[in-house]
Amino acid sequence: MFDFKITGWNGEGEARTGVIYTAHGSIETPVFMPVGTQATVKALTPEDLYAMGVNLILANAYHLYLRPGVDLVEKAEGLHRFMNWRRGILTDSGGFQVFSLSKLRKINDEGVLFNSHIDGSSHFLTPEKSVAVQERLGADIIMCFDECSPYPCARPEVLAALERTTKWAQRCKQAQRSPYQALFGIVQGGIYEDLREKSAREITELDFPGYAIGGLSVGEPKEEMYNILCFTANLLPEDKPRYLMGVGTPEDLLEGVYNGIDMFDCVLPTRLARHGSVYTHKGRITVRNAVFADDFSPLDERCDCYVCRNYSRAYIRHLFKAEELLVHRLLSIHNVYFLVKLMENIRTAIKNKEFAQYYHDFMLEYKP
Amino acid sequence: MFDFKITGWNGEGEARTGVIYTAHGSIETPVFMPVGTQATVKALTPEDLYAMGVNLILANAYHLYLRPGVDLVEKAEGLHRFMNWRRGILTDSGGFQVFSLSKLRKINDEGVLFNSHIDGSSHFLTPEKSVAVQERLGADIIMCFDECSPYPCARPEVLAALERTTKWAQRCKQAQRSPYQALFGIVQGGIYEDLREKSAREITELDFPGYAIGGLSVGEPKEEMYNILCFTANLLPEDKPRYLMGVGTPEDLLEGVYNGIDMFDCVLPTRLARHGSVYTHKGRITVRNAVFADDFSPLDERCDCYVCRNYSRAYIRHLFKAEELLVHRLLSIHNVYFLVKLMENIRTAIKNKEFAQYYHDFMLEYKP
Repeated sequence: MFDFKITGWNGEGEARTGVIYTAHGSIETPVFMPVGTQATVKALTPEDLYAMGVNLILANAYHLYLRPGVDLVEKAEGLHRFMNWRRGILTDSGGFQVFSLSKLRKINDEGVLFNSHIDGSSHFLTPEKSVAVQERLGADIIMCFDECSPYPCARPEVLAALERTTKWAQRCKQAQRSPYQALFGIVQGGIYEDLREKSAREITELDFPGYAIGGLSVGEPKEEMYNILCFTANLLPEDKPRYLMGVGTPEDLLEGVYNGIDMFDCVLPTRLARHGSVYTHKGRITVRNAVFADDFSPLDERCDCYVCRNYSRAYIRHLFKAEELLVHRLLSIHNVYFLVKLMENIRTAIKNKEFAQYYHDFMLEYKP
Repeated sequence: MFDFKITGWNGEGEARTGVIYTAHGSIETPVFMPVGTQATVKALTPEDLYAMGVNLILANAYHLYLRPGVDLVEKAEGLHRFMNWRRGILTDSGGFQVFSLSKLRKINDEGVLFNSHIDGSSHFLTPEKSVAVQERLGADIIMCFDECSPYPCARPEVLAALERTTKWAQRCKQAQRSPYQALFGIVQGGIYEDLREKSAREITELDFPGYAIGGLSVGEPKEEMYNILCFTANLLPEDKPRYLMGVGTPEDLLEGVYNGIDMFDCVLPTRLARHGSVYTHKGRITVRNAVFADDFSPLDERCDCYVCRNYSRAYIRHLFKAEELLVHRLLSIHNVYFLVKLMENIRTAIKNKEFAQYYHDFMLEYKP
């Protein structure tokens, strides 16, 4: 049901191409996963995403557990059927969301007691329950329930969180019942190299089919993040997919791939879209600004997405000012495509052993 | 540039099929025009509409004049290019909107002084200016600037408005400069048969390539509306397209076609969508209601639109509760398709001389 094969190496840095095989098709890596938190990638249909070549999306166990509830998704014969998505799905465990979105009431080794961010209702989530929820949702790849430390965070707390994350990972593995999901382990440890090393050792000893780096891009300086990313990626087995969670600016994707990361997800492309901002090859622009009022060029001259082929900045700004719903879809299509196409170009560059050059050339023009 | 040919008669009632020819393609009638007020049919792309077979949409001179402004649309080489729509466009003159949306400050025979509903800015619109605006927008069919009486409205005021509408229609005709647009006349007269007769006589004497019935569906009882619709439609030349403005529930479309109407527009399908309501062959349902929470059937069992082929009521309700943008698009696709498909079925029924039967059968099941 799940396999990963490396298909090419750049020869410079750790960049590599690969293929992930799932029951819902194969996925070329490195891959960017658009985020479909609540069983929909915001403002987009599956067909919009298929047309861009998206084969894997991320959904969220925490959100779906709270609404519409696992019973309902199960009645619908699983998340794929429910949301009309025929390709791969990875679900996050809910760990990150419990800590970042809900009102935490109690955390101990058993699990987490929290209040729903929607209606305040009380819930107790454990590693076992998270795995059961994810199995019942029916994702192709599921994640261990972990404790993600914030930034900044004192070393003793980070240590406690990573030790708990290891215990929970053992319990997640024990709790797995279905052979249809690949369960990935998550490495924590904040910005402390020795803690990352400890976490990586403990988690990889449990032998998962894939490994994620959690707890990055949570507020730490970029340089710090890149150091820990590089350090931690090197600790993960070469023959398993490596997933950098919640990371997804163009520059971070390039740096991640350089360090041997295979999978990424990020809400930014759809979130930026809702605020009228888009990626271009020269950096981000905010198309709702007055300067674009009579700019009849496409969002990005170098982009060949549906939106750039058919609409002007002036029209899109008009839609934004007029509060027209269509604008969210158009900007989401462009932003998601921008990252999906970037990953496609990255894969081609790696195959041609030109990735370092590609990275350099891209960043010459792109202003983060 | 513009022509109309009748292609079939039902033989019962006044129902007929025809074809409107424009520079942007031909349109089979009777036709329902989705409304793209602000240079977009809310939440839908042109491709969504092409896929349904939509060949003609309505845009609004009042809205576009205020935002983004005619200069900008002209710079974009016209409305078609600006909004990426390659088929027919009809623009309303702005008359109705000046009276219904803006803060009116003064109306006299010369024109209307009003304040923008967007920013309160002051504008003076005349028949000449409305025609110039519509010509510069570049629509295929444009409308005379008229005065639409509200309901209820005393006879002397209705009379004054229709007399002004006639004078303005003369001036609109005089003001036409471009050979690329077909200018339609509008018949007013409220619910007074003799006033409708006077208006129809005066307007048809001006010899327009098409005629609209204005001032209906503005609050009058349905029976009253149907009486005036039947009475007025009969006063219009048989060989010109007849357009019933702002009317578009399924039952009104059927009654309109029965009385020889060829064109309709209505904001209801997209407006209902935004409120979570949809058409079905049994009547309207509000899919956001709790009763649909675990209903895995499509919106309408008898519908073959993209949404009904791929999504359940339960999923759509979930999107609505979760305030997901995708829901507006899905419900808009279904509702617009419902009316477009209804018109297609009506045309087929007329060609087969079965329209009266079709009307009867539809209404047996449909609860308005």
